Amino acid sequence: MLNDSIRVFAPASISNVGPGFDIMGFALNEPGDEIILRKRKDRKLFIKKITGTSVELPYQPKLNTATAGIINILKEKNLDYGIDVEIHKKMGIGSGLGSSAASAVGGVFAINELLSLKLTHYELLKYSLVGESIASKAIHADNVAPCLYGGFILVRSYDPIDIVRIEYPKNIFCSIVYPGIVIKTSEARKLLSKMVSLKKAVSQAGNAAGLIAGLMKNDMGLIKRSMVDHIAESKRSKLIPYYDEIRKAAFNAGAMNCNITGSGPSMFAFSTSRHEAEKIAAAMSAVVLGFGHECIRYISGINSKGPKILG
Amino acid sequence: MLNDSIRVFAPASISNVGPGFDIMGFALNEPGDEIILRKRKDRKLFIKKITGTSVELPYQPKLNTATAGIINILKEKNLDYGIDVEIHKKMGIGSGLGSSAASAVGGVFAINELLSLKLTHYELLKYSLVGESIASKAIHADNVAPCLYGGFILVRSYDPIDIVRIEYPKNIFCSIVYPGIVIKTSEARKLLSKMVSLKKAVSQAGNAAGLIAGLMKNDMGLIKRSMVDHIAESKRSKLIPYYDEIRKAAFNAGAMNCNITGSGPSMFAFSTSRHEAEKIAAAMSAVVLGFGHECIRYISGINSKGPKILG
Repeated sequence: MLNDSIRVFAPASISNVGPGFDIMGFALNEPGDEIILRKRKDRKLFIKKITGTSVELPYQPKLNTATAGIINILKEKNLDYGIDVEIHKKMGIGSGLGSSAASAVGGVFAINELLSLKLTHYELLKYSLVGESIASKAIHADNVAPCLYGGFILVRSYDPIDIVRIEYPKNIFCSIVYPGIVIKTSEARKLLSKMVSLKKAVSQAGNAAGLIAGLMKNDMGLIKRSMVDHIAESKRSKLIPYYDEIRKAAFNAGAMNCNITGSGPSMFAFSTSRHEAEKIAAAMSAVVLGFGHECIRYISGINSKGPKILG
Repeated sequence: MLNDSIRVFAPASISNVGPGFDIMGFALNEPGDEIILRKRKDRKLFIKKITGTSVELPYQPKLNTATAGIINILKEKNLDYGIDVEIHKKMGIGSGLGSSAASAVGGVFAINELLSLKLTHYELLKYSLVGESIASKAIHADNVAPCLYGGFILVRSYDPIDIVRIEYPKNIFCSIVYPGIVIKTSEARKLLSKMVSLKKAVSQAGNAAGLIAGLMKNDMGLIKRSMVDHIAESKRSKLIPYYDEIRKAAFNAGAMNCNITGSGPSMFAFSTSRHEAEKIAAAMSAVVLGFGHECIRYISGINSKGPKILG
């Protein structure tokens, strides 16, 4: 039984997880974008509404992250449908929380469900990356893959793309603060050196391997020790004026780690209970507010399911 | 009940496991060095015999890998014992199979058992590294740790040292060929660039993380796809004149991978049965022999126990 419309939720995600620069990410329970699709009687595709953002997003479907993948699916599968789309952003664009990935996955997931296309996860990933690439220029699957698959994801390789689901402790919680400052991904990427020392590359591989082992072994001590990034964070931290202070506050409140997500400015910390996570988020948030900036905070477990149908 | 003498076996090990350059290693069932200790009536320490090697090894205990750790233990623990030592090398020095690590661990393990010292694994590691450092100048734990702990080991960090035991498929077999050519570790290390590209560093971390996930998930396909090294092997392969041919022969015979162990010249390949492993080793060995070089080959599972008492 097919419906004429669908409303879906697609989760935010944490990427560049400590030593997992460009290769790891995990999905959150909140926040997450909402995408609504309604069938039209003709074969046209329109974006009817975009809410929840002060950043101007394109209404041309080919240029919008949420609809570019949908267009590709309709075209490649020779599907004669017209669709009206609503995009309800529930997280900041450029927050470091995988905002464009959530919209890209949401659109592709929604059309697959609305038309009962039964596309494989791998196909959905491919089409979601079409949307994501509009926002981020280069292909980075470390938000799209966790958003789509749910859980904790290792992107072992980009060419060919190789997505590995990683088991993780069920009692891990994440405290997130999103400070009201703007960092462009492209600017954050320019800060990175094209070369890294052999020593740092070896450390990064050691910590990345350690983090995977810690997650799969349920070894909180090992996770904590492995949450070190030698490649991006030391450079990107300069874009967050109170980076050191947020970290200090998080650790003082009992956090296992405190790192930048994506290219920032949001930062996240792990702990092992909701109560602790709330305490840590409050401490991190207090730093941002103390500097006179706005701050949104989230508490979330790792979302094991990925996107879901809301109605 | 203490004996006056002890004979121990300390295993060879594979290090730089594919993407695990400087951070991963595993112990083999064979070959392995034998170390014999006999108590003396005075407080002196002598190396009485060294067999199994054409390379001249020092008979001064402070300068020998097998005895330097023993000396440190006796001194730091204020132990009034004299010891005669025999070192029976069972693998080539400079083979890439952790020869010096085996002797270093063998000596330290043997004195701990002979005198019932009940040192922790971590202490044994520390003293074994004293011996290993004589042979390799820099501290590298990726042979010593697997030799001592057994199994598959991740050295997450060197400062402080952090040893992580990794679960692995029980049906994994290793084919090893040791060609009769000489590569000095110090020469092999000079070939490495001090800097690597960001792209390679990210790939290396992805494959290192993928290998750990593959081992722990018992996912042979993932192990196979992850056995790629972007840092050392492309450079060091030039020191093995038939590197490409050995790899080709291994893959044609059904191997999951074929990589250099340590700084070479030995190469190893994984497979999932002893029968396959024998076929693969024969194919790899035929290449070396075809080039007119001597070749020793080994077939081994992963040794889960580390060193053991022979008598």
